[in-house]
Amino acid sequence: MALTEFALIDRYFRSCGATRGDVRLGVGDDAALLAPAAGQELVAATDTLVAGVHYPEPADPASLGHRALAVNLSDLAAMGARPAWALLALTLPQAEPAWLAQFAAGLGELARAHDVALVGGDTTRGPLCVTVTLLGHVPGGSALRRAGAAPGDVLFVSGTPGDAAAGLALEQGRLAAAPEASAYLRERFLRPQPRLALGERLRGYASACIDVSDGLLADAGKLAAASGAGVELDWAALPLSESLRAALGAERAGELALTGGDDYELCFAVHPDRVASLAAELPPQRWGYTRIGTLRAAPGAVVQREGTVMEFSHSGYEHFA
Amino acid sequence: MALTEFALIDRYFRSCGATRGDVRLGVGDDAALLAPAAGQELVAATDTLVAGVHYPEPADPASLGHRALAVNLSDLAAMGARPAWALLALTLPQAEPAWLAQFAAGLGELARAHDVALVGGDTTRGPLCVTVTLLGHVPGGSALRRAGAAPGDVLFVSGTPGDAAAGLALEQGRLAAAPEASAYLRERFLRPQPRLALGERLRGYASACIDVSDGLLADAGKLAAASGAGVELDWAALPLSESLRAALGAERAGELALTGGDDYELCFAVHPDRVASLAAELPPQRWGYTRIGTLRAAPGAVVQREGTVMEFSHSGYEHFA
Repeated sequence: MALTEFALIDRYFRSCGATRGDVRLGVGDDAALLAPAAGQELVAATDTLVAGVHYPEPADPASLGHRALAVNLSDLAAMGARPAWALLALTLPQAEPAWLAQFAAGLGELARAHDVALVGGDTTRGPLCVTVTLLGHVPGGSALRRAGAAPGDVLFVSGTPGDAAAGLALEQGRLAAAPEASAYLRERFLRPQPRLALGERLRGYASACIDVSDGLLADAGKLAAASGAGVELDWAALPLSESLRAALGAERAGELALTGGDDYELCFAVHPDRVASLAAELPPQRWGYTRIGTLRAAPGAVVQREGTVMEFSHSGYEHFA
Repeated sequence: MALTEFALIDRYFRSCGATRGDVRLGVGDDAALLAPAAGQELVAATDTLVAGVHYPEPADPASLGHRALAVNLSDLAAMGARPAWALLALTLPQAEPAWLAQFAAGLGELARAHDVALVGGDTTRGPLCVTVTLLGHVPGGSALRRAGAAPGDVLFVSGTPGDAAAGLALEQGRLAAAPEASAYLRERFLRPQPRLALGERLRGYASACIDVSDGLLADAGKLAAASGAGVELDWAALPLSESLRAALGAERAGELALTGGDDYELCFAVHPDRVASLAAELPPQRWGYTRIGTLRAAPGAVVQREGTVMEFSHSGYEHFA
């Protein structure tokens, strides 16, 4: 079956995402035409997934479609932004209709869930590589940034970090676990749920925010460094899922929560005076976040455990380290 | 030399493009924050270059950086838009400082020439693949589209199509030519100059516009089809560069002008009543465009030569054909 590029784009991606009134011209011309919301800043992020690097091969196409968008949604969540429009650059070895249908279904389901329209893209032949660029809005001057926190601010993380890294190890056959825990952890890797609702609500509370993609310790360290501070995490406070504990035991579960990647959770700082009202407005149990440490004046990112500082040889995934 | 991803981005791309006052937050956070211009529509395009597909290997890094942005600039030119901000997703096998410096120089020089700020991106390890997403502005409701032309409209093309395809053939050793012609044609492939000034000036004149990237005949056909029409090109009117004629002879030069790719010129339609004022306002000799045919009611794209219709077996490059 020979599909021309044009027919391919048309068949699988024209109606893939949400329908939005602010799209003046979507897929099919030289560029998309969009109507930015008045009084808002535009927020833009781009992320690439490469098969064999971020993924075991052969990559599940529905998960690849989901994650290619999810990683960008998570970036916008970390800014406190609301997503609107996505562009998809898809490089693949050949155009297989079944593969494309599953990929588009995975991408489209998540896009519609967050009211994201797919407004443009490019398809190219080559090694499997997916780049999504996501655009959205945030009220002018109110975006969350990595910079802005100060020593003494309390640090929180959403969800249960480490799950996705364990899920990837299970996918790759580097780890074995009981069926229920295995299914849960794999799903956490294959279909991460970016924290957009939390991100939006954190505007006005968080002094700084970052999305946890390279490992909690590394990303908390980046937030602290951008804020001109350091960070001290509390080992005992790390939120670990039951499945992660069951699969790895508490010790290795804690290590993976600190150093695993692909969580797509939010790590954010809150001034101590604002912690009580944050808890009242967004109850942690309902919104799914946990206090894990504090910012300090001394630079660096360390973990306190029973009064001593833990050392980590691996502080998160660096693509070119 | 081990560069972390963060240091790599910082070193080569933080100051790569233009500096713009409407960038609230650029490279280095989870997403960029941008201030869209009031009363304007946002224009967005994304394009990927893959080494070995769009390029002979090893690809010249400065040319790769230039072209990765140029192909997107050309998309915005075809909409009559003015570019503003770019995001770069760069996948490469390893981080070589010399390669990165040249790539960033090629990208940065063209970006600064068109006042484009590099506001974000992602670097990943994998097979060489470059995706640039470009954002810009066009006054609300005034963008040029592929649709909008009608039978009887006159068709024009900028520049001398076919040069870049010959340049690629020279780069790949599939073609030989005298030194001067060879140098000219290679440069046309390696460093295409997108027609942004012409695109902006065509607003109010062109009834439809498309950027010529897959071959003039194929792209003129897309413009016509989007406008619910067909197109008839005039073989004798095709603008051929002296270098292309010298390298290939008039016959093959004309064929390549019709079917070669990578031109990044503009093909546009103008209502017959507007042709005279277009020529007065934008003299063709100065602005470098040529009348090449007309739109007709019958669908399809054909070439007239001395009263007969020419047939083409290959009407442009289709990535998945």
